[in-house]
Amino acid sequence: MGVWSQLKKREIDGIKDLIVVIVQDHENREVLMQAFANQEAVEKTIETKKAHYYSTSRKKLWLKGETSGHFQHVKEILVDCDADALIYLVDQTGAACHTGYRTCFYRKAEGGELKTVGVKIAEPK
Amino acid sequence: MGVWSQLKKREIDGIKDLIVVIVQDHENREVLMQAFANQEAVEKTIETKKAHYYSTSRKKLWLKGETSGHFQHVKEILVDCDADALIYLVDQTGAACHTGYRTCFYRKAEGGELKTVGVKIAEPK
Repeated sequence: MGVWSQLKKREIDGIKDLIVVIVQDHENREVLMQAFANQEAVEKTIETKKAHYYSTSRKKLWLKGETSGHFQHVKEILVDCDADALIYLVDQTGAACHTGYRTCFYRKAEGGELKTVGVKIAEPK
Repeated sequence: MGVWSQLKKREIDGIKDLIVVIVQDHENREVLMQAFANQEAVEKTIETKKAHYYSTSRKKLWLKGETSGHFQHVKEILVDCDADALIYLVDQTGAACHTGYRTCFYRKAEGGELKTVGVKIAEPK
């Protein structure tokens, strides 16, 4: 019956029928980014094994790596208890973050400030 | 100036001013759950070092472990590039999931089905 029909969708910033996606390195388990997906994005991800999302800012389907070359090869998709969030376990080519950091989560909150703790491995895209 | 004011909030299912939170085991890096937080939840988490969320179903502040005893001791909070998602790196007491599984992500999507792959370590709460 397909995975999408078994998921509980949310409305994010006025855009209906999206699901939260957490992107995690399938080897070292680093969380690389968080994004949202719609039905087309989830189905294209399953079909092509390349991570697709729905960009809430550009309001369109987004194949990660399309412009940067930093594709995410999806090894496995995990689903949570209430089926309203996914994990894409990926093999990440290059940097996950457009800033050039390996992960988008390259800062930590400390003493009210955001301090950089990540490693930059590529030029910003 | 405080962390909250530096974050980009989203509207989730009609509830304004929330931020996505990913909860990850600080030792083995397993992703345990995904939830949302409002200002009060983030500030109480920073203040008490116990994970707080905003329950979108019960529409109120939620101290994880309040009823189950399965508290999450927050070791570090990471922030992503566009400051619209957090990671709580936690020391999880017992099961993160109310079903008794260690992680809420105990199923994988395979061949259109959701198959259980996780380990149950506690009674459902």
